[in-house]
Amino acid sequence: MGGLVGVSAAPFTYAAHVLGVASAAMVLVWCVHFRGGLAFESTNKNLIFNLHPVLMLIGFVILGGEAIVSYKALPFSKEVKKLIHLIIHAIAAVLGAVGIYAAFKFHNESGIANLYSLHSWVGLGTICLYGIQWIFGFVTFYFPGAAPALRRNALPWHVLFGLFVYVLAVAAAELGFLEKLTFLQSSGLAKYGTEAFLVNFTALVVILLGASVVISAVAPAEVEPPVGYSRIETD
Amino acid sequence: MGGLVGVSAAPFTYAAHVLGVASAAMVLVWCVHFRGGLAFESTNKNLIFNLHPVLMLIGFVILGGEAIVSYKALPFSKEVKKLIHLIIHAIAAVLGAVGIYAAFKFHNESGIANLYSLHSWVGLGTICLYGIQWIFGFVTFYFPGAAPALRRNALPWHVLFGLFVYVLAVAAAELGFLEKLTFLQSSGLAKYGTEAFLVNFTALVVILLGASVVISAVAPAEVEPPVGYSRIETD
Repeated sequence: MGGLVGVSAAPFTYAAHVLGVASAAMVLVWCVHFRGGLAFESTNKNLIFNLHPVLMLIGFVILGGEAIVSYKALPFSKEVKKLIHLIIHAIAAVLGAVGIYAAFKFHNESGIANLYSLHSWVGLGTICLYGIQWIFGFVTFYFPGAAPALRRNALPWHVLFGLFVYVLAVAAAELGFLEKLTFLQSSGLAKYGTEAFLVNFTALVVILLGASVVISAVAPAEVEPPVGYSRIETD
Repeated sequence: MGGLVGVSAAPFTYAAHVLGVASAAMVLVWCVHFRGGLAFESTNKNLIFNLHPVLMLIGFVILGGEAIVSYKALPFSKEVKKLIHLIIHAIAAVLGAVGIYAAFKFHNESGIANLYSLHSWVGLGTICLYGIQWIFGFVTFYFPGAAPALRRNALPWHVLFGLFVYVLAVAAAELGFLEKLTFLQSSGLAKYGTEAFLVNFTALVVILLGASVVISAVAPAEVEPPVGYSRIETD
């Protein structure tokens, strides 16, 4: 992609790591400390739901972001980076799928309707596009691999569509934070209370995470030295 | 920005126009046909609220998108395009500010709390960043204008930050659609009814609009002819 004059990807990659760790900690504090913890089987169905935000954020959004930045940031050969990129994306997709399953399980065991909200539509669309992008990337760039000319033409689309899907994943997360908090607030949770602020600030950190990942992907790995100066050899 | 091999901005610009018109029609059908119409002063406070989605979507998101694509798409001189770009953005910002005022007016006249939701936080943040970006762009690129070297270095940041703010505006719109529909559904609106589908499909059209505007901004205006072939002159 290139074109970001005078800025290298590295600081945005570090920012993505820091914001990823921060938002992971925040969503865990929310679901464990404020919402009672996580469980796959429980008579308290809310504990099943709690798996959903944790797996979607840590598994899908944060790990998905790490998979994107890894391709440029890691100091390995192209083939090794490609393998790492597709493995982390696969783990992210599987954790995302389990996270979505947890939401359906919570709905079904609690008698709540499925798939009526914008969050569910955007979220399900995102993971479908994510899967398509993964399979397309695997076949074109990894195995069996397309002809060199096709790969060259496909790469910018792979980057562009990948970033679109990643931004969609961040948007789905934002919709999810808003939806869950609205339900809690309409059941009496304080509108300006600690928990509401924690969830909203987590959502803001996730927006900054998304921006860091995208900039990290479009900025060049190394910046050209300024034109007009040359290093003075002091031999 | 460049780098999108083999694809020109034009089809995405046309797509942005079509999706803009479609989503404008959809939000008007929602607010006028389903929600009772628009009014700045009314005893039915819901009519004041209805100004909010209409002005934010048509005024801020659609017109803001047109301002972005206009800079590349219009066949005028750079100075004229710059003037059109900044005038459309100014109109978008003013309509957005009036739209936000309508939301506060509705809340205040109906005894509803202000600024507790993620939608309000992201939305207010977006219009503040939009204003900062406009002032920065005006001073740097229009009047009085910075030194050429600074302008050259600032341009990619202007594009990148502008697109970030535009994506934030689209995200705020998505949060708004979800929030309003959740309120309506918790007051008895059918979860799988016509109105719910209309709002969700409007939100999906707005996501596609946002993607079209961003691609239109990053794709080159003209694509290089394929290498290896040259036109045969037939005189």
